[in-house]
Amino acid sequence: MKPAAVVVGVGPVQGLGAALAYRFAQAGLTVFPVGRTEARVRRVAGDIEQLGGRAKALVADATVPEQVETLFTQIADLGYVPELVTCTVDLNLKAPLLETAPEDFEALWRANCFAAYLVAREALRRMLPRRRGTLILTGASASLRARPPFTAFAAAKFALRALAQGLAREYGPRGIHVAHVIIDGVLDGERARRRFPELVAVKGDSGLTRPESVAELYWQLHCQPADAWTHELDLRPATEHF
Amino acid sequence: MKPAAVVVGVGPVQGLGAALAYRFAQAGLTVFPVGRTEARVRRVAGDIEQLGGRAKALVADATVPEQVETLFTQIADLGYVPELVTCTVDLNLKAPLLETAPEDFEALWRANCFAAYLVAREALRRMLPRRRGTLILTGASASLRARPPFTAFAAAKFALRALAQGLAREYGPRGIHVAHVIIDGVLDGERARRRFPELVAVKGDSGLTRPESVAELYWQLHCQPADAWTHELDLRPATEHF
Amino acid sequence: MKPAAVVVGVGPVQGLGAALAYRFAQAGLTVFPVGRTEARVRRVAGDIEQLGGRAKALVADATVPEQVETLFTQIADLGYVPELVTCTVDLNLKAPLLETAPEDFEALWRANCFAAYLVAREALRRMLPRRRGTLILTGASASLRARPPFTAFAAAKFALRALAQGLAREYGPRGIHVAHVIIDGVLDGERARRRFPELVAVKGDSGLTRPESVAELYWQLHCQPADAWTHELDLRPATEHF
Amino acid sequence: MKPAAVVVGVGPVQGLGAALAYRFAQAGLTVFPVGRTEARVRRVAGDIEQLGGRAKALVADATVPEQVETLFTQIADLGYVPELVTCTVDLNLKAPLLETAPEDFEALWRANCFAAYLVAREALRRMLPRRRGTLILTGASASLRARPPFTAFAAAKFALRALAQGLAREYGPRGIHVAHVIIDGVLDGERARRRFPELVAVKGDSGLTRPESVAELYWQLHCQPADAWTHELDLRPATEHF
Repeated sequence: MKPAAVVVGVGPVQGLGAALAYRFAQAGLTVFPVGRTEARVRRVAGDIEQLGGRAKALVADATVPEQVETLFTQIADLGYVPELVTCTVDLNLKAPLLETAPEDFEALWRANCFAAYLVAREALRRMLPRRRGTLILTGASASLRARPPFTAFAAAKFALRALAQGLAREYGPRGIHVAHVIIDGVLDGERARRRFPELVAVKGDSGLTRPESVAELYWQLHCQPADAWTHELDLRPATEHF
Repeated sequence: MKPAAVVVGVGPVQGLGAALAYRFAQAGLTVFPVGRTEARVRRVAGDIEQLGGRAKALVADATVPEQVETLFTQIADLGYVPELVTCTVDLNLKAPLLETAPEDFEALWRANCFAAYLVAREALRRMLPRRRGTLILTGASASLRARPPFTAFAAAKFALRALAQGLAREYGPRGIHVAHVIIDGVLDGERARRRFPELVAVKGDSGLTRPESVAELYWQLHCQPADAWTHELDLRPATEHF
Repeated sequence: MKPAAVVVGVGPVQGLGAALAYRFAQAGLTVFPVGRTEARVRRVAGDIEQLGGRAKALVADATVPEQVETLFTQIADLGYVPELVTCTVDLNLKAPLLETAPEDFEALWRANCFAAYLVAREALRRMLPRRRGTLILTGASASLRARPPFTAFAAAKFALRALAQGLAREYGPRGIHVAHVIIDGVLDGERARRRFPELVAVKGDSGLTRPESVAELYWQLHCQPADAWTHELDLRPATEHF
Repeated sequence: MKPAAVVVGVGPVQGLGAALAYRFAQAGLTVFPVGRTEARVRRVAGDIEQLGGRAKALVADATVPEQVETLFTQIADLGYVPELVTCTVDLNLKAPLLETAPEDFEALWRANCFAAYLVAREALRRMLPRRRGTLILTGASASLRARPPFTAFAAAKFALRALAQGLAREYGPRGIHVAHVIIDGVLDGERARRRFPELVAVKGDSGLTRPESVAELYWQLHCQPADAWTHELDLRPATEHF
């Protein structure tokens, strides 16, 4: 079995998922970009191959147990074992709690927490026999403080943080490095520029975090020697108020 | 509309839900003991009435949106408005995360977090027009630290804590007191003695928290004047290691 | 030896120290109001006696080891043993860290942390043989978050929080209830009205916490049964942003 | 003015201070190893020069305001401006709080918190005009939880954490990267092997963190681009229980 990076939550080429895929491929790993939209994951895999890297696009909705199981089976069938797995699936909602419908409250939990649980479970199952592997989950400011109108998002991100913490305690001594990165600030990219144009304007270019910078950090986390593992860290632009 | 206490999560007469119902009734409030098992809520309501209090048992599964909606409609139809609402529904599971099935991971979230969200939503809707009311949610040691083999439980309790925190920030300034009580230790009662007999034996009688002690604290929280509200506090036996 | 309350940090009659002294006396305890200014502690003791309570004013600077030792020796010589001890000595400074002189940085630590350590030490020494007693220390928003221009204050309040936490873990199982109350908001009184008149104006009367409300809570903490002790809790006006 | 690294708290050649000095020199920076013992800082500076690096040993007791002022004046007089400054001065004590004398309680605060404040102050003063520089402070498990018999140590480390947090909030937007690294576990080296031989034996070689691994992380923190700065992170061996 050859080692591979599995990047779950790949969307637009300027997004965080894509940046992670590019970075891991550049480091020489075979990368599986995974997302719900075939065109997007294919585009990222294509870019990687054009630059001389190795990538295989796979389609899955990470919030559905069966699809996550199938995903990891496909990877194994192709002869790969996950060595570095990230899950950056996320979903946010800006609404007073009383205007947050049960379906939305649940959908946020599925995207931000349940998907990571499903991915972690399948990944760990394959990593444990080798006693090696890195799993990186992605938090937000809301992982530490619940502030309206983002209470439902915070409920999901708090849950994700507990998941990461429990996994680190449970599987760290068995060789698996589980890290939780709290991104406090706005990621630069199409999505932010389209959805929060005023916020982006206020912050200015130096007030946004580039996905490439995050990807570099994730790669450093994967490279940490086993005598000095980081479980949790934050990340923000110099100018970000916190 | 007459003010009432709604106690969601009433099980055995020795449990925390029942203790809350007794305490609030003793203070003079009409109490609605709510739980999934009709015999149990009726028993608690009966006990209250025998002691000269006022209680009306209602049956609902707090993890189901429609049932929670119906519950609060019934209360309104009876001429009552919620003044003090508690939700102590909880579900725990002791298992390594890899042996925690998706259904279990989800069930823990539904019981420990989603139910509280549903109850909070319906309660707040009725409290806000009066700009008064108290909502108390119940955490555990796992609300602050995720430790295997209780990672799934911690993920749900972390989420509940975020919910309570966001609600307090959002609705406190509008007159609603939202509190989150972190019970760190084992509650005395049938359940603990049946499920963890060795643990109970090790702790000894003075090492368990009596539900009546917790109920007293909840009542004190409800009585706090609006210039000095507590949002979060912990609670444990003197001898508890933490 | 008769039980007594020792209230360290008594200043103006409208302040928190005085409110604690009045409340504990009203509950029937003999109270020792302690502060640096003789006229102030005498005034509070006099008020208590006029209302039919028992109080003995003592003068001490709680930041000086010898004075704290002498204080507790005096109390013992008078035939009393501390049963409930509070320390609300505090000192704040609003300044960028680069404009905070070493003497100021140190003075804040002495007032906010070192004094509490000295008081705790002498109090615990007398409480432990009886295996009973309550010690309550007072934090602030800055106990949880360090925000400029209050970094030096936060450094001192973080330290105090650690002290309280370590003491609770160490001496709780030996019968001593150590609590840490985080007052998040502005206390009403002469001091606030004189030093932050604009802030007080913005918050309005309902936006300030009355010392009497805090005193009530401290009394409740002292009355908690040993099966349900609170170590840490926050406190703020309903309208306070947090 | 040429940029330099100032490494405060250099002791034995196997210690963390020395490892930081070696790492920064290897990266090409001129390094000032600073400590109380001339022989030690000279030894480290000598090692660096032998390997082709640039280093100048300076002697100072970082807990004394005048000495820290003089230190930074000397560096300026030599034509250097601090670009990367670390302070790893620390002092621990294992004792019940009641057996911790006031002098010890104070000495721990001076070494673990006050020294860092003094160093930060002088360093920031020189960094701010250039709007660039990195300051890294070093925490421990006790920065997050106060556990007896290490309460006094925790009080000092909590204070240090507040200092780092306040500094990051105050000076980050002005171009200074302030990071707080929580080392959770035992650093390998002479000191640990001499002072806690049984602990070292229990943990085994893979259960200790090598100072070189920590030094690598500090260097990565210094290299982070300004759109993605980490303020706080933890670090522990894979096998460490937490």
